Amino acid sequence: MEITTNERDAVYKTIFSRRDVRGQFLPDPVSEEVLMRVLTAAHHAPSVGFMQPWDFIVVRDAETKQKIKRGFDQAHAESAEMFSDERQALYKRLKLEGIVESPIGICVTCDRNRTGPVVLGRTIKQEMDLYSTVCAVQNLWLAARAENLGLGWVSIIHDSALREALEIPEEIDIVAYLCLGHVEHFKDKPELETLGWLPRRDVNSVIHEGKWNPEQVESAESDK
Amino acid sequence: MEITTNERDAVYKTIFSRRDVRGQFLPDPVSEEVLMRVLTAAHHAPSVGFMQPWDFIVVRDAETKQKIKRGFDQAHAESAEMFSDERQALYKRLKLEGIVESPIGICVTCDRNRTGPVVLGRTIKQEMDLYSTVCAVQNLWLAARAENLGLGWVSIIHDSALREALEIPEEIDIVAYLCLGHVEHFKDKPELETLGWLPRRDVNSVIHEGKWNPEQVESAESDK
Repeated sequence: MEITTNERDAVYKTIFSRRDVRGQFLPDPVSEEVLMRVLTAAHHAPSVGFMQPWDFIVVRDAETKQKIKRGFDQAHAESAEMFSDERQALYKRLKLEGIVESPIGICVTCDRNRTGPVVLGRTIKQEMDLYSTVCAVQNLWLAARAENLGLGWVSIIHDSALREALEIPEEIDIVAYLCLGHVEHFKDKPELETLGWLPRRDVNSVIHEGKWNPEQVESAESDK
Repeated sequence: MEITTNERDAVYKTIFSRRDVRGQFLPDPVSEEVLMRVLTAAHHAPSVGFMQPWDFIVVRDAETKQKIKRGFDQAHAESAEMFSDERQALYKRLKLEGIVESPIGICVTCDRNRTGPVVLGRTIKQEMDLYSTVCAVQNLWLAARAENLGLGWVSIIHDSALREALEIPEEIDIVAYLCLGHVEHFKDKPELETLGWLPRRDVNSVIHEGKWNPEQVESAESDK
């Protein structure tokens, strides 16, 4: 099946305008039809040995969101202590999640025992099932952007907090907690870039020709 | 920036027609312009704390590819021993990589020390930098599909074999080795589905409402 030039450009437009959304969520509901489309896109991610190890827990309930928000607040307070004084002041001012404001939360998990102990393609690199699940997250993220929905990945939370709030069994790995919803607007650039937290690296500095090139990495470091 | 309905449909078309390509590579060269587009798409993946921890090593040299192919062959022979008799016969017949036939190999790595020891968003979940790198792989994969290029992820190889062939330092994590090139055709369905290795799961079986639902998982298992 051929992808046309216009279709290709639509994919690039979506990739380049995708953002990690934290602060611009609107309370408008996401229709069930749209939610099923983005989850189906996630389900069509590549998976090692076709094991499809992912599950998606859809969170709508205000009380559950509050529990998860408390988990974030605790982890965020712990995290703030790890930054030096100057960075810490900025860190504390950043809006880093939209757990309560976004209409839908999605916890993405990985069942590493699915389809049995020996998985084609996971025999050598054990983390491939987790990586497949991350591919599902990225499919979901791009599908959401294509639906003009914002998505944010909340990583500042202990797995134990999500496990308790969502009754996830110990044998299931937690990969991501995502916030999904309509947005006021999408920012032109990543917030951490705009705020000067870190610059966008030159794409040429991350491309090595033929083999690892240590000089290139050093020159990228000295440009900072 | 608004994504139109046509643009959205192009994204879904790309997501649903993406395949893990192993056997249909053509020797036709990939232009430098196209290669830069797919690598730039990868570079615009989400990254925890905007650390952009990835590097891309572009492999074109026949001798290097042969070295990597030998690494695959060894890991593949080891892996075959792990499958039961019946599965092993099928496993051995599968074409699982296109290392030598594809014009371009791309090794995707993660520099976990990039931007220093404390990374915003990685304070609690340490694997976030590796997961960011996997998001870059998935962006690259979809961009390749949008360019009508095939891509295959070779996971049956020890990191040590890639490390040696590409001179990757010990402190750099290896996430993926990808084969990229023009293809004869894209298969309609994943090969492992067509060959009956595993079925496509019903998308409804991986969606849980409100919290983890053990009954749903059991019913999906009993359907097999």
